[in-house]
Amino acid sequence: MSGNTFGTLFRITTWGESHGYGVGVVIDGCPAGLPLDEADIQKELDRRRPGQSNITTPRKEEDKAEILSGVFSGKTTGAPISIMIKNKDVDSSKYEELQGTPRPGHADLTYEIKYGFRDFRGGGRSSARETIGRVAAGAVAKKILARFGVEVLGHVVELGGIRARPVSIEEIRENTEKNPIRCADPEAAGEMQAVVHMAKSEGDSVGGIVEILAPGVPAGVGEPVFDKLSAEFAKGLMSIGAVKGVEIGAGFRSALMRGSQMNDPITLKESTYGRKISMLTNNAGGILGGISNGEIIVCRIAVKPTPSISKEQCTVDMSNMSEKTIKIKGRHDPTIPPRIVPVAEAMVALVLVDQMMRGGFINTSILGDSYS
Amino acid sequence: MSGNTFGTLFRITTWGESHGYGVGVVIDGCPAGLPLDEADIQKELDRRRPGQSNITTPRKEEDKAEILSGVFSGKTTGAPISIMIKNKDVDSSKYEELQGTPRPGHADLTYEIKYGFRDFRGGGRSSARETIGRVAAGAVAKKILARFGVEVLGHVVELGGIRARPVSIEEIRENTEKNPIRCADPEAAGEMQAVVHMAKSEGDSVGGIVEILAPGVPAGVGEPVFDKLSAEFAKGLMSIGAVKGVEIGAGFRSALMRGSQMNDPITLKESTYGRKISMLTNNAGGILGGISNGEIIVCRIAVKPTPSISKEQCTVDMSNMSEKTIKIKGRHDPTIPPRIVPVAEAMVALVLVDQMMRGGFINTSILGDSYS
Amino acid sequence: MSGNTFGTLFRITTWGESHGYGVGVVIDGCPAGLPLDEADIQKELDRRRPGQSNITTPRKEEDKAEILSGVFSGKTTGAPISIMIKNKDVDSSKYEELQGTPRPGHADLTYEIKYGFRDFRGGGRSSARETIGRVAAGAVAKKILARFGVEVLGHVVELGGIRARPVSIEEIRENTEKNPIRCADPEAAGEMQAVVHMAKSEGDSVGGIVEILAPGVPAGVGEPVFDKLSAEFAKGLMSIGAVKGVEIGAGFRSALMRGSQMNDPITLKESTYGRKISMLTNNAGGILGGISNGEIIVCRIAVKPTPSISKEQCTVDMSNMSEKTIKIKGRHDPTIPPRIVPVAEAMVALVLVDQMMRGGFINTSILGDSYS
Amino acid sequence: MSGNTFGTLFRITTWGESHGYGVGVVIDGCPAGLPLDEADIQKELDRRRPGQSNITTPRKEEDKAEILSGVFSGKTTGAPISIMIKNKDVDSSKYEELQGTPRPGHADLTYEIKYGFRDFRGGGRSSARETIGRVAAGAVAKKILARFGVEVLGHVVELGGIRARPVSIEEIRENTEKNPIRCADPEAAGEMQAVVHMAKSEGDSVGGIVEILAPGVPAGVGEPVFDKLSAEFAKGLMSIGAVKGVEIGAGFRSALMRGSQMNDPITLKESTYGRKISMLTNNAGGILGGISNGEIIVCRIAVKPTPSISKEQCTVDMSNMSEKTIKIKGRHDPTIPPRIVPVAEAMVALVLVDQMMRGGFINTSILGDSYS
Repeated sequence: MSGNTFGTLFRITTWGESHGYGVGVVIDGCPAGLPLDEADIQKELDRRRPGQSNITTPRKEEDKAEILSGVFSGKTTGAPISIMIKNKDVDSSKYEELQGTPRPGHADLTYEIKYGFRDFRGGGRSSARETIGRVAAGAVAKKILARFGVEVLGHVVELGGIRARPVSIEEIRENTEKNPIRCADPEAAGEMQAVVHMAKSEGDSVGGIVEILAPGVPAGVGEPVFDKLSAEFAKGLMSIGAVKGVEIGAGFRSALMRGSQMNDPITLKESTYGRKISMLTNNAGGILGGISNGEIIVCRIAVKPTPSISKEQCTVDMSNMSEKTIKIKGRHDPTIPPRIVPVAEAMVALVLVDQMMRGGFINTSILGDSYS
Repeated sequence: MSGNTFGTLFRITTWGESHGYGVGVVIDGCPAGLPLDEADIQKELDRRRPGQSNITTPRKEEDKAEILSGVFSGKTTGAPISIMIKNKDVDSSKYEELQGTPRPGHADLTYEIKYGFRDFRGGGRSSARETIGRVAAGAVAKKILARFGVEVLGHVVELGGIRARPVSIEEIRENTEKNPIRCADPEAAGEMQAVVHMAKSEGDSVGGIVEILAPGVPAGVGEPVFDKLSAEFAKGLMSIGAVKGVEIGAGFRSALMRGSQMNDPITLKESTYGRKISMLTNNAGGILGGISNGEIIVCRIAVKPTPSISKEQCTVDMSNMSEKTIKIKGRHDPTIPPRIVPVAEAMVALVLVDQMMRGGFINTSILGDSYS
Repeated sequence: MSGNTFGTLFRITTWGESHGYGVGVVIDGCPAGLPLDEADIQKELDRRRPGQSNITTPRKEEDKAEILSGVFSGKTTGAPISIMIKNKDVDSSKYEELQGTPRPGHADLTYEIKYGFRDFRGGGRSSARETIGRVAAGAVAKKILARFGVEVLGHVVELGGIRARPVSIEEIRENTEKNPIRCADPEAAGEMQAVVHMAKSEGDSVGGIVEILAPGVPAGVGEPVFDKLSAEFAKGLMSIGAVKGVEIGAGFRSALMRGSQMNDPITLKESTYGRKISMLTNNAGGILGGISNGEIIVCRIAVKPTPSISKEQCTVDMSNMSEKTIKIKGRHDPTIPPRIVPVAEAMVALVLVDQMMRGGFINTSILGDSYS
Repeated sequence: MSGNTFGTLFRITTWGESHGYGVGVVIDGCPAGLPLDEADIQKELDRRRPGQSNITTPRKEEDKAEILSGVFSGKTTGAPISIMIKNKDVDSSKYEELQGTPRPGHADLTYEIKYGFRDFRGGGRSSARETIGRVAAGAVAKKILARFGVEVLGHVVELGGIRARPVSIEEIRENTEKNPIRCADPEAAGEMQAVVHMAKSEGDSVGGIVEILAPGVPAGVGEPVFDKLSAEFAKGLMSIGAVKGVEIGAGFRSALMRGSQMNDPITLKESTYGRKISMLTNNAGGILGGISNGEIIVCRIAVKPTPSISKEQCTVDMSNMSEKTIKIKGRHDPTIPPRIVPVAEAMVALVLVDQMMRGGFINTSILGDSYS
């Protein structure tokens, strides 16, 4: 299972289980000189935290970040940054009975087969609590990116079949954190909430689509041919539990387009620095040939409905190889997209820092604040 | 640009440009004892080759594979396998004039910005000829997989808005190679061809969707949490030029589903080896928690329309920073999906061999032929 | 500084500073099913711990290991194992004055130049406390190796110019832990102690040579050409602070030998399993062409004298770029080899597990207990 | 055997066998804009080439380099550089009889065990011809380093027991290439030649020590803790066949030193750029804490005597598991150090470019010519 490390030059390693001591991350490759304290991390963790609203699990976790290394006198030193978040509100009682009974749509079965044995409490390593380490590291990545004028913004664009209207970057900045759905279209957000509550009341769950935008990425980021910027986003985003699809720019819509529609016309735009090459549309999602072209990066992910539902489902009892049914108890989110937003942002931010380091845009030793 | 290597234990490195000496691949990590000759490679290269039909570029390339190392007495030795394919029918005349004029939808602009200079002939490194190395290596990967009962099958499921009807594995095996579209639904294939010809006659191009299936993958393959099987497929497939989206199983459809629809019910199936845990549906696409569950692996990719079109398009002249229009000449495919099929199969096969090695399913030194 | 991860399939990432919260390691890739508790780790940490004897620093550290993840019901689960050791007896008072004054032979100067800033307390990240994570992970590696009949044994063969007589494996097992020098030749150990005390009384320190043996390694381990077993040992051992040389088998002595002396004659030996190919001598140190040959693995490292000495030394004051002298206070070992023994063993064990996994000798998912 | 790639950002992959089609290397990560032609490569290959003098094998190989990709209009493009060298003077007749008979001191036995089968002709992949790819890639690395004022110089300091007197950098530049031994002390070179001839006439071979110096490396290169500059040199150098030991600076001599002798005093030196921190001695070999300190890098390797000797040796016949003796025929060097010099230089150069890229000293996309 040596797959718990992500990145080449800006590299994170996560650890921890849902009902164990806690979860954590080691960030290796953060340059020296970045002001960093626990509040920087906490801000992002609070966006991912359970119990934020009535559409998230009632599990009560403070998810308090502790920085254990790599920071001295309020600044990063270049050494690995170890961050730990202890588990508090652990209730494993509901899981004992699931020990030999894999939950449909969960990793229970595959972990059991692969490892012959598993920490079944709360999903163990395959729990969504694993993503805490990603978000903590993403907070550091975002702080670095901010120094270079790069922003990473996620929002829910579709939930339970309700689609948000097209929104501007300003609306996303403005509206997203104002509703529990994290949808930048307030009207759609209201409808989405209604759909979620309905599904919840039926013991069911709903899926949705999250969009992540990154304005400010300079042209030239990405390493062809296998480590294309798009390929790294795809890997990072698809590695998040519950994500079943990733698209860049026009994505699956591009399958329906003609070349004359898809190709973004190249043009010149006046900017404060003189004439600048730019695109009239952004079907490419800011990436051509795996390299950023200076336009806004656009990724979208398909998020499946929460697999933990209280409706009756078919499964098997592995202890005696017989069929049975289960209704899943425990505390679960009726929909994942609102809480996956900070996780997806984190993955995009981690990829961007790593690739900007690989391309020489960010110095790996001492943090500067421009690309020169 | 140190991004030309793919894989951890079964690792390929590709090289070469469209109009240079040739293209090639070094396969590192192939176990000893695999019977291998150039015909094994050629078979797959011929599926990717230009000039196969009237919907592909008329460029005449034999794409003849030469194995330069790693094979002795007809069998692999465990040493790196170097494969070279020389370029033959090179005509760079059409490209001279494009030197300072980036083609919309192409990597011309981003390569120029990133490297300050580029081999503009035929797209240089960013040409689709780069995928020859992938296909050659994929041929070796497929031959290994066959030893373990794993098959990799690609087919076009949508083209220019025409959607194929759902088909069985048998139909895919039977029909796909019988029409130039590589569509397993012969009727849809006919309509797709018509759409392609119409677009071509208008100087335009069409996009589509390719599905790749892998039956026979044993349960337990994939390394959580970042190197999930799904994440590796996403990276591998998104790294292919023209791919703008990747989905696994129900993919983007899962965003519209309820948990009770999405979760694949777990059941018992009688098999020749006794009762076996299996799923009643396959919305998961054969992967749960990043680990294969024993069902058929299902990936789909969105392929954008060919960016090279002869319609007039807006671009800029970088030599004097002025706007201009171009009509692209040269020899181009009016649609990419039919020829991307073997490339996508190759990426799926490469990921599978690598992950089966990482999980201990395939010995890295001497090739056996069972999982024990 | 993304250099804090070691290994390919069995991979460790260490973190922590001398005078920070603590130090730790995340072990990624440990197969499921290994019985593991904190006592397994503690046993090895106690061998590395300060304050063991009058030839080690008087710093009082319990170095108590806490396992934070990856173990459930007393067994590893395949998930990352996070181990933390808190710092206790931290006294940074002696270091404040050294802030702008790099100590000769230390990393102070180079960290200052590379990162523009450093945690100067106790050497920060460049302190020997960094090796605690290696030893903790090495304890896990050794436990895995033991399942496959592989042992890793270190001992001091030279210290302050005193050379131990040649000893047998049995003497090493028997005598090494019985004296504070960790020398398997008790007489030499006594002389070495005298030399150390003399140097210490003069405010000076001494260097030495440590040998690490690994009996039981099966033939066939090691991945040519760059990841030769010898090359991985060289990297792992040279990455330990204070190590200035690494040799395998006859090592530097081989420069003085003729081919007819150096080549180990190949012969047949009767064993319980029938006739077995074996070598009459072991100048190769168990490795030919980068692959283990079934003989005992033999590595030796040159360890420089402790750079922290109380004798007056020349250095500079970086705050005003003037020359000055310093006498280093603080608590230091007068010699490093005795305490480096468990660290060097750890690195050899880590390389062996990783390479045995890469070569298919150890399953990466579920721990078995034979090579088959 | 997925161990044929070396480096992180400047990464090479080698392929090829002694008596196959040829050998080659793919260099991935070379920045765009480096003027490069085949003569640059040839210059270094000619230093490694067989048949240079009467102390090298009489095998006649032109070792002509062909650049197959990555260079356009005389400059690198950032794409992978594929270099191929065809084998010409192949004579496998002497090897047929050795098929089942492993040569002592060679990799024959271990390859046979690991892969169950091997290309026995001329040592196959384990032949010293494998190093041609390293030297070709090293030539590119050296050309990059030269842009930054970094030089890499190897010379033989000991051969067959004859030790060269200490020499200056100027003497090394001046004298090394003037004698077939590559010894910068002309008198010692003469004696060494005599020793080699004597050994050869007796059907035997001699070992030696090679030193590699790298003046001009800026302070701050190297990534603690596992990827220390010293650790990377150790891995790169130990991965060369016939190398049995690696040391940095005072190396094994440091084991005999007191701290007060070993520690290099820190001082200030007037330079054209003002006062500069520098060391009075260089026992550290230019590396402190794994990071370069601005002094000359000093590495030394122990090279074992050529294992191929014509004296009678004991071995076994694996076909019938009986003991036998052999006298090795074929064409062999009576000593390796003179021809290993360019190989060792290449490895040092490769590590330096890779680490200077990792540390942000060399841009990975477009080659500049200063550190700023």
